[in-house]
This record gives sequence, structure tokens and C-alpha cells, in this order.
Amino acid sequence: MRRPAGETREDILNKAEELFRTRGYANAAIADIAHALGMSPANVFKHFHSKASLVDAIAARHMEVKFAGLASVDTNRPAPERLLELAQRLMASHRRDLEENPYIFEMILLTAKDDLQCGHRYRDIVRNALEAIIVDGAKDGEFAPQRSRRAADAAFHALACVLHPVMIANEQPDILATRCEEVVRLINAALQTTLD
Amino acid sequence: MRRPAGETREDILNKAEELFRTRGYANAAIADIAHALGMSPANVFKHFHSKASLVDAIAARHMEVKFAGLASVDTNRPAPERLLELAQRLMASHRRDLEENPYIFEMILLTAKDDLQCGHRYRDIVRNALEAIIVDGAKDGEFAPQRSRRAADAAFHALACVLHPVMIANEQPDILATRCEEVVRLINAALQTTLD
Repeated sequence: MRRPAGETREDILNKAEELFRTRGYANAAIADIAHALGMSPANVFKHFHSKASLVDAIAARHMEVKFAGLASVDTNRPAPERLLELAQRLMASHRRDLEENPYIFEMILLTAKDDLQCGHRYRDIVRNALEAIIVDGAKDGEFAPQRSRRAADAAFHALACVLHPVMIANEQPDILATRCEEVVRLINAALQTTLD
Repeated sequence: MRRPAGETREDILNKAEELFRTRGYANAAIADIAHALGMSPANVFKHFHSKASLVDAIAARHMEVKFAGLASVDTNRPAPERLLELAQRLMASHRRDLEENPYIFEMILLTAKDDLQCGHRYRDIVRNALEAIIVDGAKDGEFAPQRSRRAADAAFHALACVLHPVMIANEQPDILATRCEEVVRLINAALQTTLD
């Protein structure tokens, strides 16, 4: 009996993650994943055309789980504090991921040349969370009125130094904690004026 | 006759750059560099203990040349404009480097785990240039009074999204140009207030 395509897809992702974790990203080929699943490589290729597309799908799945609670930062607190907490929570989450699964860093480096969908998805999730805070802050008079989406975009990019894996993978925790506070302080200060 | 150690060092760096450029960083070993120079690998190791230390020295040499004129941005112009021009010039320079010498990107990815001195040197050069602008801006009333070094540090980190090779290597020029303007706008807005 043939299994539904969705289940096969999940099987492939699970096995790919397992092999990337145990052997390292560079050392696990699509053929290895197929072999471990008792499938033909052609069958895996039907679902994923490249290792990069596997990375994309693994990252997407990871993000749905990881960032489900992102909006749950206490909305009663002042917007500048919420912005700091958002940045700190994201940074801590990424650091944990990198520590627990070193293969993620290898995976990110080896797909750095590819324009993966997961990068855009990540930006959208974080930018939306930032935008919500900026809108609330402007409503409560904690921030100046903003073109909120544009401001959220600038804030997202400014936060790359504490969110992007390449920026945080080899940095000391105390240095990162300070950097995060300082960059959020900069963003919060900028949001006191209308960025036009 | 033995050559002075300084000259031998330069010879090694020149040959290493040439081989990295022509073969790719990953495909040129220290033994290859020694062989191409008619030297023993032990002799190369005397000067450079690892490929990472070669990268460090190549990058340091590159920066001295590249950033010699960094302070020469017209100091009569308003500080916010100078800040934008500094960011744009640095970004353009890095983009040119990456385009002309793709091996640089490979080199950066493969040493991403190493804590290289050139990274600290780069931060110092750029932070000093930023600090000079921030000090002038505060003097001329274009910025609020600042703890200038700390503000320059925050600005430097916020600019990683348009300066770090991993952030810019695969991005469209028009997207990068906009991002650079938006992040500098954010920084300039923040500097209107005292960041304490």
C-alpha cells in the first residue's frame, strides 16, 4: 500500500535531520537519506530537488514550532521593554539551537549562497512581531508615529548582529547580551522620532 | 643568502592569495603554497601556523590598503550625511571585493568558526570612523551629546546587515542600497537622542 505523499515527505525530513545531526550536513547525501529509508534516490528527489530544499523544509518546520509563541510577549508591558524581550528571546533560542545542534551552523554556512525561502519566512515572522510592538508603542505614545512596516524592517536588519547565526555562533554570551541591549537601545531611541 | 624574514612572509602571503584565488580557498593547502614557492612546509609553518592565520594576515594587509582613505570623507558635510556615505562606501567596497574575488567569501565561511584578529581590527577601524562622525555631529548640534564610543559600537553592530560579507554576498544591489539607507536613517534618528 502506498503511503500518502505528506507522510513520505515527513519521513524524509525526519531522516535527513537525523543524518545531518549524526554525520554532519556535508557528509550526508540525498542518496544516503534514501538508502536509510529503503527508498530510491529518485523517490527522494521527487520530494526534494536538492539538499538546499531539504534545509529549507527542515528550517520551515522548525520555525513553526519554535516561533509559535513569539507573539505571546506580555502586551501590557511598555513597547520598548517588549522589543528588548523579543530580541533577547530570539537570540537565546538561536544560541540554544546552535549549541545543541552544531550541524545547523554547518548547514547555514553551506547554504549561504542559496536564496532559501526559510530566510524570507524568518524575516516575515520576526518583522511582524516587531511591527506589532511598534504599532502598540505608537498607540500608547511610547514611540512616535511610524510607517510601522518600514520601521520594523529597519529594526529587523539592525538586529541581524544578534540574530543571524554567523554573527552569534562564536561570540561570548556576555558580549552578546550587551550587544543585544545596546542595539535595542539604539532602535528604541530611533523609534522616539518619526523615521521619515 | 637568506632573505629577511619580512620578505619571506610577504612572498608567502602573495603566493597564498594567488593560490586561493585560482584554486579556491579549500583547495590550496599550506603544503601547496610551500611547494609553489620552492620552500619546505615547515618553513611556511614557521611564519603561519594555520590557514586561518594566513587569512588573518591577508585580510590585515588588505584592510590597511583599502581603508587608508576611510577618514577622508568630507568633514564639512553634516554628520548624518557623512554617516550614510561611510556606510555606503564600505558596503560598495565589500561588494566589489566579493565580486572580484569569490574566494574571499569561501575563505570567510570556512574561517567563520575562528576568532580572527582581522575581525577585531575591522571593527576598530570602522568604529573609530563612526566615532569621529558622532563626536563632530554632537559638537555641531546635529546629534545629541553621546557617550561616543558606546554609540559608535552600537552603530557598528547595527550596520552588520549591510557590511558583513555573509549578509551582502547574495543580495540584490537595489535591495542592499535601500537597506543601507534605512538602517542609517535608524541610526541617525537614534543619535538625535542621548543613548543612556
